[in-house]
Amino acid sequence: MGEPEPVDQAAREQELTDRVVASFDGADDERLRTVMQALTRHLHAFLREVRLTEDEWSVGIEFLTAAGHLTDDERQEFILLSDVLGASMQTIGINNEARANATEATVFGPFFVDDAPRIENGGDIAQGAAGRPCWVEGTVTDTSGRPVRGARIEVWEADADGYYDVQYGDERTAGRAHLFSDEDGTYRFWGVTPTPYPIPHDGPVGALLAASGRSPLRAAHLHFMVTAPGFRTLVTHIFVRGDELLGSDSVFGVKESLVMDFEELPAGTPTPDGRAVEGTWSRTRFDIVLPPADQPG
Amino acid sequence: MGEPEPVDQAAREQELTDRVVASFDGADDERLRTVMQALTRHLHAFLREVRLTEDEWSVGIEFLTAAGHLTDDERQEFILLSDVLGASMQTIGINNEARANATEATVFGPFFVDDAPRIENGGDIAQGAAGRPCWVEGTVTDTSGRPVRGARIEVWEADADGYYDVQYGDERTAGRAHLFSDEDGTYRFWGVTPTPYPIPHDGPVGALLAASGRSPLRAAHLHFMVTAPGFRTLVTHIFVRGDELLGSDSVFGVKESLVMDFEELPAGTPTPDGRAVEGTWSRTRFDIVLPPADQPG
Repeated sequence: MGEPEPVDQAAREQELTDRVVASFDGADDERLRTVMQALTRHLHAFLREVRLTEDEWSVGIEFLTAAGHLTDDERQEFILLSDVLGASMQTIGINNEARANATEATVFGPFFVDDAPRIENGGDIAQGAAGRPCWVEGTVTDTSGRPVRGARIEVWEADADGYYDVQYGDERTAGRAHLFSDEDGTYRFWGVTPTPYPIPHDGPVGALLAASGRSPLRAAHLHFMVTAPGFRTLVTHIFVRGDELLGSDSVFGVKESLVMDFEELPAGTPTPDGRAVEGTWSRTRFDIVLPPADQPG
Repeated sequence: MGEPEPVDQAAREQELTDRVVASFDGADDERLRTVMQALTRHLHAFLREVRLTEDEWSVGIEFLTAAGHLTDDERQEFILLSDVLGASMQTIGINNEARANATEATVFGPFFVDDAPRIENGGDIAQGAAGRPCWVEGTVTDTSGRPVRGARIEVWEADADGYYDVQYGDERTAGRAHLFSDEDGTYRFWGVTPTPYPIPHDGPVGALLAASGRSPLRAAHLHFMVTAPGFRTLVTHIFVRGDELLGSDSVFGVKESLVMDFEELPAGTPTPDGRAVEGTWSRTRFDIVLPPADQPG
């Protein structure tokens, strides 16, 4: 027998990728076809680049299996995985393309509830949530600086122990409410000063973070969702300037433009609305700029 | 206020990807760092290319959740997912780089068992598995054509109803055995002629296949695992020339070099070993060329 033909390994690998891509040609739904074909190309490019071993493939299967078994109505390990890989934040950025000077979006998180109570402008969302009182005020405007009146502002946050009300295990509502901007676009409310807390980290995602030398802690933040007719809904947070976790938020939610000054005020300092507050309190300002509603096509 | 600065959406998206990649810089294990950083880059490239919507992201989370809940000791939906995306086959190809004229590898599958009975060369692996009798013979050689004696040849296959013995729900062993090549490298055995069967398709992976216009059927095949000192272990199948599914095997296991002629012989045709067979039988030849053991480095 003569010399064996040289084997082109790269061509064989590419041929397989092409074959899998072609297997989706028959999908009726054009978008499904596009997404699955792109997923196939990128997945295979990953496998080929790192030369994934068969043992590593097994570790991947075991990871997904463990994540699946941990996931139930109250724990969503796949969302955590998406979060710590920055996939959630990337998806949000893609769907909320930055518009001129409009306020930037960030992750929605799993702790929003639909029916938070309404408060008047200047009211208190804490409703018993532990923490240092915090006065939050600002304006809602369009990208030209014109006030937006009647914008619906949903706000929610964890307490000083790092828990949202839905984690208390009782029926209490605390640390959440909605209010509306005034005629001149201004809004204001009392809440508690945000503090850091860890994402659930006793599962495979937590093990991945630990092995990677990463912390499960989220930078301290206060959630906002702002809606008004004619504008794109804004889902965002504000963060606390000086928080040591700003550079290592476990879900990559921090954007520089969303980091606010939280001024600390000693006990006895008069409050903006004359409310009597015991001990130290803080205040911050967050001026919200709503992007216009998406135009079709 | 002046003109707002133009926003560079692509730069923002890239900055996020870079931030996630950098978050793995602290992993102690260099390989973990390499794999996770590559995974991050390819995952983000996918999201950015298809401009994944937030609804599509949710569908992905629900898909993984359903796959996790279906997976147990007997059903592995994540392996099926890897299979139908060609990721299993790509990983096998990467770890079994094609070598000169050596026989190509393909998927191992979930139906191998460690303690299949030994048969003598020329024995019958069917042991009651239903199907048309099939005589299989060939040689085991190295890449220079020299016979490999005493190679351990494990063979296993589904019966004519599409089931492996481990799916019967009793303790029977059928359609599997191991044997050894003779002094001259030859081997031979009786089995049953391979027939197509579907991968489990009543879960999310089956739904994905259906939506994509893809069949869950595997091309008919007979499994081989061949081991011999000084050689790389070969895990492969042989396929049946003329099988309509060769071009659409649901797990992409088919390689042209593994497609064999299965000759059909009418009832009464004398058999190679003089065994009396009722009705039609078939025969095929599979000459196995073992690649040398991997060299370190």
